[in-house]
Amino acid sequence: MKCDYTLYLVTDREILKGRDLLQAVEEALAGGVTLVQLREKDASSREFYELAVSMKNLTAGYGVPLIINDRLDIALAVQADGLHIGQEDLPLPVVRKLMGPDKIIGYSVSNVEEARYGEKHGADYLGAGPVFTTATKKVSTPTLGPAGLKRIKETVSIPVVGIGGINLENLKEVRRTGVDGVSIVSGILGSDRPGHTALSIRREWDNG
Amino acid sequence: MKCDYTLYLVTDREILKGRDLLQAVEEALAGGVTLVQLREKDASSREFYELAVSMKNLTAGYGVPLIINDRLDIALAVQADGLHIGQEDLPLPVVRKLMGPDKIIGYSVSNVEEARYGEKHGADYLGAGPVFTTATKKVSTPTLGPAGLKRIKETVSIPVVGIGGINLENLKEVRRTGVDGVSIVSGILGSDRPGHTALSIRREWDNG
Repeated sequence: MKCDYTLYLVTDREILKGRDLLQAVEEALAGGVTLVQLREKDASSREFYELAVSMKNLTAGYGVPLIINDRLDIALAVQADGLHIGQEDLPLPVVRKLMGPDKIIGYSVSNVEEARYGEKHGADYLGAGPVFTTATKKVSTPTLGPAGLKRIKETVSIPVVGIGGINLENLKEVRRTGVDGVSIVSGILGSDRPGHTALSIRREWDNG
Repeated sequence: MKCDYTLYLVTDREILKGRDLLQAVEEALAGGVTLVQLREKDASSREFYELAVSMKNLTAGYGVPLIINDRLDIALAVQADGLHIGQEDLPLPVVRKLMGPDKIIGYSVSNVEEARYGEKHGADYLGAGPVFTTATKKVSTPTLGPAGLKRIKETVSIPVVGIGGINLENLKEVRRTGVDGVSIVSGILGSDRPGHTALSIRREWDNG
């Protein structure tokens, strides 16, 4: 499946502080988000499933693919366009086999070795990070910085998106690494006007 | 798949207080457990997967089916014999479709309406409870008691196992309801000698 990785929104309900997730994502879609990843860490399987059904309807209306984080069962149940996994999730070869050849598989990497592994075992794209420090995810992994991100991008031939602490201020720096897009959590959903913020990021990227 | 529901062990790592889960389950299998359900509520997908691979090897060696709790992705990834779901998990019709016709699907119910729904939508067996009060699961659902369990058993034609607070002392009372077996968590894994306890329960049941 062909996919535009330019502006990849990753969800986080906590950061919304009670605002409605579907509404915030819809605003971001209207602002120019090209890909959505639904990430739920504490929901029951039923809650995750029901939210994913609603999200699929929403993203489909914008012609934007929906990727599910971690949970292959939810991805299969809602016939999502793909699955994004990290180092703590199901093994990549198992995921590729169960999802079939046509679904988008994303893989989180934080160094060149993991990037090579991802490309070799069937990932369609890599989410590389954290590029900068971020409050969204508590990670002990050292930040890549633009230089580390560039090194990963140059190591593989599949698309790479940067993730972690990316915002309007550092976007140009990220773009210059040659990556295919940026994955943004708090930079969009943490904003009071997700649509406006997404649009500003798109313009900054497109004018890069 | 034909299945013996007589003594159904459900795992709970918390109750083991640091003892090794695989070793405790192996003792219980040697003692006469006929079915094992692997339940993990806080593990990462990777941890759950790796534990499930080991558990599958163990149960297969005893010719005992392995059922995964809640996580259809883990069940598919390790080619488990079945999946057990509750009211907070993926919808039963979705699960039946994704697991195919040959896998064992179990469904937790706490009243006659849920039991009818389960039978109608493709469950192979029902786990009905809580029969008695139990410390393992914090539930607000009222206990069924032997009378409520009997009512559920008489409502459906698929196998029914009782769950919740069942032990050697109340086993005869449960058996008299006509259920096909008992599902036990703390009664076996909370015991210092899981194998000996499983054997005692089997004997008490078989001598019914």
